[in-house]
Amino acid sequence: MREHAIEHRVRYDECDPMGFVHHSVYLQYFEMGRTELLRQSGGRYRDMEDRGELVVVVRVDCRYKAPARYDDLIQIKTRIANVTMAKIVHEYTVTRDELPLVTATVTLAVIDRQGQLQRVPQDLLDQYGDEG
Amino acid sequence: MREHAIEHRVRYDECDPMGFVHHSVYLQYFEMGRTELLRQSGGRYRDMEDRGELVVVVRVDCRYKAPARYDDLIQIKTRIANVTMAKIVHEYTVTRDELPLVTATVTLAVIDRQGQLQRVPQDLLDQYGDEG
Amino acid sequence: MREHAIEHRVRYDECDPMGFVHHSVYLQYFEMGRTELLRQSGGRYRDMEDRGELVVVVRVDCRYKAPARYDDLIQIKTRIANVTMAKIVHEYTVTRDELPLVTATVTLAVIDRQGQLQRVPQDLLDQYGDEG
Amino acid sequence: MREHAIEHRVRYDECDPMGFVHHSVYLQYFEMGRTELLRQSGGRYRDMEDRGELVVVVRVDCRYKAPARYDDLIQIKTRIANVTMAKIVHEYTVTRDELPLVTATVTLAVIDRQGQLQRVPQDLLDQYGDEG
Repeated sequence: MREHAIEHRVRYDECDPMGFVHHSVYLQYFEMGRTELLRQSGGRYRDMEDRGELVVVVRVDCRYKAPARYDDLIQIKTRIANVTMAKIVHEYTVTRDELPLVTATVTLAVIDRQGQLQRVPQDLLDQYGDEG
Repeated sequence: MREHAIEHRVRYDECDPMGFVHHSVYLQYFEMGRTELLRQSGGRYRDMEDRGELVVVVRVDCRYKAPARYDDLIQIKTRIANVTMAKIVHEYTVTRDELPLVTATVTLAVIDRQGQLQRVPQDLLDQYGDEG
Repeated sequence: MREHAIEHRVRYDECDPMGFVHHSVYLQYFEMGRTELLRQSGGRYRDMEDRGELVVVVRVDCRYKAPARYDDLIQIKTRIANVTMAKIVHEYTVTRDELPLVTATVTLAVIDRQGQLQRVPQDLLDQYGDEG
Repeated sequence: MREHAIEHRVRYDECDPMGFVHHSVYLQYFEMGRTELLRQSGGRYRDMEDRGELVVVVRVDCRYKAPARYDDLIQIKTRIANVTMAKIVHEYTVTRDELPLVTATVTLAVIDRQGQLQRVPQDLLDQYGDEG
């Protein structure tokens, strides 16, 4: 599975004095999205972390087109864009009733507990790599 | 030192659609307050955590009297109320220009990495305990 | 309806360096719980806010018994404890696999946009008040 | 003034189970940075918002090089990169002891309460625009 969508009800604490979801919160939504995409594919970030494979964000490029508000029901779509030995790239689209609100590309890398860069685990490469 | 005050400039992300600091954020302010009180006394929570002494919150009793807003300069006063072998109790008062906004009592306990309850470390007892 | 339970998958951003849900986050969970309880009863906090009825927290009394971790599936149970002209009191229990993690009592009041205390709206009183 | 740096002590609630500042939190740090840069220049976002000039983020491009941890003392440097009638672009560098941790470019636009795009206010243009 290379793509998955989840629904989310916007929480009050996620919104700012303009009444909009604070722009930093979308990065949390993306993380929810990739957690569920991996779960749908049979994996768990929690298990990776227990094995000492720490997944860290190395780049976020995010464009905000329209705001979401408290109690909105939004869709968060996560798509695998690219997986190599060095990095995992996801693309995200957040929509409300088909209206695009936010799009983003987030690049992940894998490190160990000492902070040393690791190869992307083989099972992710097998599943999502270009030959996968 | 049994009492210490810090100043804080309210951040935009801390405020909700009413324009007020979200009520959950005060618990983060209290944590900032006790971190600085301990530092003023020569200790660091970070060092305790590195030694495997994990400080956890077991109770929060918090009363909200008036709201703080974005960009307000507020004072967070932390006071040691009680320290025993089993728990550490702090009292907090958040004010803006002498106006009381929020008061709270927060009770902490100490656990190890396996989640087992530990004695409050002797140096805290010596410093803040009834005989301290 | 005086009681309602929701499920929540713990997010990575909600957890702290101990690996536990940060204690401040439960206050956000409670807000999610009462939002859904009101929705089940046919109301919406968002509509109240649009009418200028701002619901504010005046007291939180929260006890933490056991931690939740990233990716845990938890249950948040919200119960109406008491509704009067002056306040709305909810009780909360957060559990994981029947294990109680956190319990709390949260007291709400209603203010207008000028910050003046208002009567609890009649429809809430009718529904949840002692005569309701 | 086109550049300003602030110091920040990393809060416990800002850190995740890896022990690192959660990547979403840096967007909040940037907002703190531009708030203080504007204040140093004699303005206040809060006043702009009171006048109905809402400043929204339209793009974030952020690169994470090294992690910050609880209790770290970090520097957040904000620099005006470009101001036109349509947008305000800031560049950010977060460092700890001169070590670069995170760099970012954040693009802002100004809308009114109806969500309509507005010209960047003249005083900001005068101060920071290419002719400014």
